[in-house]
Amino acid sequence: MSPTESSPRWNLSDLERAAEGAVRPDVWAYIQGGSGDERTLRENVGAFRRRALLPRTLTGAGTLDLGTRFLGTEVAVPFFVAPTAYQREIHPDGEAAVARACAARGVLAAYSTLSSLSLEQIASAAPGGARWFQLYPQADPSVSRSLVERAASAGYSAIVVTVDVPVLGSRDRQSRLGFAMDGPVPIGNGPAVRQPARALDRDGDRYRVPAPGRVNLDFLGDVGSWGGLPVLVKGILRADEARAAVEHGAAGVVVSNHGGRQLDGAAATLDALSVIVDAIGERADVFLDGGVRRGSDIAVALALGATGVGLGRPILWSLALGGEGGVGQYLDLLRSELANTLAQLGCPSVAALDRSFLAERGGSGSE
Amino acid sequence: MSPTESSPRWNLSDLERAAEGAVRPDVWAYIQGGSGDERTLRENVGAFRRRALLPRTLTGAGTLDLGTRFLGTEVAVPFFVAPTAYQREIHPDGEAAVARACAARGVLAAYSTLSSLSLEQIASAAPGGARWFQLYPQADPSVSRSLVERAASAGYSAIVVTVDVPVLGSRDRQSRLGFAMDGPVPIGNGPAVRQPARALDRDGDRYRVPAPGRVNLDFLGDVGSWGGLPVLVKGILRADEARAAVEHGAAGVVVSNHGGRQLDGAAATLDALSVIVDAIGERADVFLDGGVRRGSDIAVALALGATGVGLGRPILWSLALGGEGGVGQYLDLLRSELANTLAQLGCPSVAALDRSFLAERGGSGSE
Amino acid sequence: MSPTESSPRWNLSDLERAAEGAVRPDVWAYIQGGSGDERTLRENVGAFRRRALLPRTLTGAGTLDLGTRFLGTEVAVPFFVAPTAYQREIHPDGEAAVARACAARGVLAAYSTLSSLSLEQIASAAPGGARWFQLYPQADPSVSRSLVERAASAGYSAIVVTVDVPVLGSRDRQSRLGFAMDGPVPIGNGPAVRQPARALDRDGDRYRVPAPGRVNLDFLGDVGSWGGLPVLVKGILRADEARAAVEHGAAGVVVSNHGGRQLDGAAATLDALSVIVDAIGERADVFLDGGVRRGSDIAVALALGATGVGLGRPILWSLALGGEGGVGQYLDLLRSELANTLAQLGCPSVAALDRSFLAERGGSGSE
Amino acid sequence: MSPTESSPRWNLSDLERAAEGAVRPDVWAYIQGGSGDERTLRENVGAFRRRALLPRTLTGAGTLDLGTRFLGTEVAVPFFVAPTAYQREIHPDGEAAVARACAARGVLAAYSTLSSLSLEQIASAAPGGARWFQLYPQADPSVSRSLVERAASAGYSAIVVTVDVPVLGSRDRQSRLGFAMDGPVPIGNGPAVRQPARALDRDGDRYRVPAPGRVNLDFLGDVGSWGGLPVLVKGILRADEARAAVEHGAAGVVVSNHGGRQLDGAAATLDALSVIVDAIGERADVFLDGGVRRGSDIAVALALGATGVGLGRPILWSLALGGEGGVGQYLDLLRSELANTLAQLGCPSVAALDRSFLAERGGSGSE
Repeated sequence: MSPTESSPRWNLSDLERAAEGAVRPDVWAYIQGGSGDERTLRENVGAFRRRALLPRTLTGAGTLDLGTRFLGTEVAVPFFVAPTAYQREIHPDGEAAVARACAARGVLAAYSTLSSLSLEQIASAAPGGARWFQLYPQADPSVSRSLVERAASAGYSAIVVTVDVPVLGSRDRQSRLGFAMDGPVPIGNGPAVRQPARALDRDGDRYRVPAPGRVNLDFLGDVGSWGGLPVLVKGILRADEARAAVEHGAAGVVVSNHGGRQLDGAAATLDALSVIVDAIGERADVFLDGGVRRGSDIAVALALGATGVGLGRPILWSLALGGEGGVGQYLDLLRSELANTLAQLGCPSVAALDRSFLAERGGSGSE
Repeated sequence: MSPTESSPRWNLSDLERAAEGAVRPDVWAYIQGGSGDERTLRENVGAFRRRALLPRTLTGAGTLDLGTRFLGTEVAVPFFVAPTAYQREIHPDGEAAVARACAARGVLAAYSTLSSLSLEQIASAAPGGARWFQLYPQADPSVSRSLVERAASAGYSAIVVTVDVPVLGSRDRQSRLGFAMDGPVPIGNGPAVRQPARALDRDGDRYRVPAPGRVNLDFLGDVGSWGGLPVLVKGILRADEARAAVEHGAAGVVVSNHGGRQLDGAAATLDALSVIVDAIGERADVFLDGGVRRGSDIAVALALGATGVGLGRPILWSLALGGEGGVGQYLDLLRSELANTLAQLGCPSVAALDRSFLAERGGSGSE
Repeated sequence: MSPTESSPRWNLSDLERAAEGAVRPDVWAYIQGGSGDERTLRENVGAFRRRALLPRTLTGAGTLDLGTRFLGTEVAVPFFVAPTAYQREIHPDGEAAVARACAARGVLAAYSTLSSLSLEQIASAAPGGARWFQLYPQADPSVSRSLVERAASAGYSAIVVTVDVPVLGSRDRQSRLGFAMDGPVPIGNGPAVRQPARALDRDGDRYRVPAPGRVNLDFLGDVGSWGGLPVLVKGILRADEARAAVEHGAAGVVVSNHGGRQLDGAAATLDALSVIVDAIGERADVFLDGGVRRGSDIAVALALGATGVGLGRPILWSLALGGEGGVGQYLDLLRSELANTLAQLGCPSVAALDRSFLAERGGSGSE
Repeated sequence: MSPTESSPRWNLSDLERAAEGAVRPDVWAYIQGGSGDERTLRENVGAFRRRALLPRTLTGAGTLDLGTRFLGTEVAVPFFVAPTAYQREIHPDGEAAVARACAARGVLAAYSTLSSLSLEQIASAAPGGARWFQLYPQADPSVSRSLVERAASAGYSAIVVTVDVPVLGSRDRQSRLGFAMDGPVPIGNGPAVRQPARALDRDGDRYRVPAPGRVNLDFLGDVGSWGGLPVLVKGILRADEARAAVEHGAAGVVVSNHGGRQLDGAAATLDALSVIVDAIGERADVFLDGGVRRGSDIAVALALGATGVGLGRPILWSLALGGEGGVGQYLDLLRSELANTLAQLGCPSVAALDRSFLAERGGSGSE
């Protein structure tokens, strides 16, 4: 017995630890940090730990189909890259590295309004890749409109409207380490684009959410009309709002608490998922991000009814570790682990995952 | 990217750690310590950790109103400074520093019978400040009466009668470090004022709560008649007693276990809150102290039905760190964080917080 | 402020830590150790941590009566010293120190069959003390009878029959440190007395509990007839067996798992208490030992319906620290803390403690 | 008092720690590691910690019968050695040491398809021993058939068909330490025998479980017909599959998640046990492995309805520590502890264990 010669530098359980040394401490605080005391950040991961799976082992099945449909379009895998800002802070190739790694594997990726490359540069870095454009609503509606139109022109296939950042959360870890969001890396989409407000406006004892304010339901219709693209609403934790979003034209929602970076104390996304699936799952797609790390996490979310799951920090970790190659290694490992999970579950496809694979809490399953 | 130049010395998550080095070890033990094994002290904080919030993100609202009414009077924020004794042990300016920081920001503060400055000195340190007087019932009723009358004359707007100190609890941490409550700082309100008894009287196998004994319901009426001020009863953890207090004339209660300093093993205040709100919330104000640290904690307590919340240790930490400036920084950060929390919750005002913002335990929310 | 000059060397929260240095490591392992992986040992203490108290603070009561009745006889406090063996391993004065400390304070103590002094020596060390004799049933019934008759003659007022040691449990910690139960300290009650068997008899694939075997219900009647004393059955965790014991003449039971030293995995005593109180509480006394450390623990057990509680390890800790003086200090601190707890609870007597002082789990109280 | 001279080198609570130093780090990773983040591995053990036992102490019984029936045949104890591969990696004597230790004590052992000695060598190492043969279904059915026929000829009394390894799980700890499953120790059962696949086959976006694929229910009938031996299905966590297995001729099932080495996130075996017992317990034997360490664990599993329990890692630990002697010491300690547990429970035989010995969760028992 000797160490396997071709063993990769890290595997999924090593990824986070391995990445820490690859970036500056303030950038690490930006990647890792949540808001406040980081309770929601921890809960997002912890909620997956509380679920148990009940595999079938006598099904005799042979093939494993990882493909599914996002917004009616076939995708190779039920996970996608969630939008995160400023990727050139993490690796010089930034979003281009992510785009190439994803396109080479048929993995859909969403790109942030605050990408460090322009949305057109990203598109041309990996022409064949499936991609969504994430929109931070802008104070000037014409800037929002311009971004949406550019995304439509550049071949993005959906607009993901982020609704959970009326103002930035209290990002204490990041502040302590001095990470500045207006650092040397400019916003790739141009000088007209604005970051979300860092602080509320104040007028005596009243505070005001600065423009553009919180998202209004009518805005969803506007976004859809500008680019002719389906609209996803990202940042939903409640069934009533998921229902309202769909009634105002959303093609789906992303159950998200912004990776624990906005309201500390917000419910874990996995805990919020099933009531939202029950409310809109037959009419619309329900995505989830927050806490997804491994193949079995994906299976849990899909068994609860998610259409697909987004990956945030793990992409940044692997980007930091190895640029395009690092992201590719992560995506390969994750896809492989998801396939392995399906094999272990005795489930022939991601489409066949349902709640019968989950142990009831306090029931026959663990905890 | 470089560290923000104007970053304050600490933020809310650093406050406790930062304060430790600013006082003598025995004073730190006094500030931090609870009774017994400090279970209730930990539970007060832990009870907030077990709640999860369900933000609304599609409400479109713009302004955020932090104001509310305490005992029918408008206040700028739904938090107040809970009464704590001997503040000159912690900073040479003592209660005057707190009073000035609060008055400058329209924050109501309650001052202890055992303040190190007299209630009149406190009032004149910050003439415009809203303030309550906390009364430890005195063995000699005329001393209690005199204190209440002085408070009324000096512009205090309510009397907070503490009912959970028939005798001091077993403050082991403090005892170990040798903190002496009869130390060099005299009681500001004069030599006639007595501290609560440190030990029970004993007569053979029977013990007796020394005068003034536990508070009798009739006493509440007396206090109200002496100064003509509304009476709050502080130290209630049970619905039956909250109801009795209101039936005997109390304008409200403070759900409190004395910051975990009296009966170790007493229920956490947040756990006790909702049944008390259900019992008296329509007729009287229900305040809470114990475990409140951050803006999201305030939102949780108010969503459960609290009228407002009191701040104990955080005020002492910030007083130790910077006197008036430190307290002011804390109050500013907390107000700002509460506004941020309302913004994240999609809730236009503290008055609009209700239980629909809380995830049911074991339900769709976390845990 | 300077450290209080007269502060005792330890308080209740320091006791365990302080004691560790006062004995040899193998004796410490004997005192502290439980069986197996010490889960039951930890659970005994942990079960108290899971309960929360709901004090009354508006009751106006003044006197606090700590007295109650054990087996119909008045006792000064609702706690007693549980029987533990070989006390001269821990302090040269052994049981005499405990007896003197207890008698001086009106605290009942139970003494083990395996005491290092004879039961008569113990009686004469503290003639006025209230005491029970704990009986390990002996293989030779005449030895049991002789012990019971001697106890009756020497003024012991009840026989506590231990039923949970058919054979010693797996005391791994103790074994690892090499504590030998047949060490240099002889059994005070004479050479005819036998320790419980350390191992089962084996016959091929069958094991046999060596004589005297497990206690038979008829034995309880025999014990009662030998000395004319009331019989308590110690080591009960089930309502059915509590009922059977009382139907066979027992005056009460001690809910006990032998301090976590017998069956590791056995339920915590506090968890087992309430169903036993419900089954026999109106007809017989229900004592509890295991996990009691502080005054509030006593209040919790009594509120659940216990008649009184036994103290095991804390007595050994305080004996190790200071012989008679140490035990006395512990008893004084505990009595004082119980009185303080009653005062905080607004409860005039231990007899008035009932379940209304306990928060329902998952209800309005903590956890 | 001096350390007992004849004390063994370790007791049950020391076993794991003691073993760590006895093997190479990569072999230790192989023994200890589970898949993924090792949640299921921890949960298997943790599930036993959450149960509490309610001993009977007034039953008067004397003998303790540890014998039971496995598949209708009497066995001396209700535990057996679960199949584990490559035992010569751990100790030069490998399976022969285990076989001799077991045969000398009447303990049944199951041997892996991947044993480092041939099944015939194992049989001849301990001719009188009761043994089962564990079958990893082979891609070439004739290899499976040959193995089953050889096992029948060599006196194995049942075939344990493992169904939870369609492909190996993600064994991260093992991979990190470089343990190679195709190391220098050859497969004892001959070159035709294949390990389970380490990776899935991939065809574009589809994955395929490589031959032999997941077990088909018809295969169970084939295995039974080949050797004329009863068939156990190992790797069941669901009642529906337990029922299906029995309906297709299985004589019983082993509730197992492969010791947490296959699907990380799978339910703990103890949590899955009772619904399976309820489904098939009257018609078939229900064994369990995973997390069993001590005598009280065995009692818990049997009280929930298990016929017997398998031991995995503890056998490898004791094998590493002392070969045949080490395994023998472990088996002796475990048998002795199980007898002790029965004695403490007041239960005359393993057959008499039932759910009345378990505290209900949230009920009268702990937690």
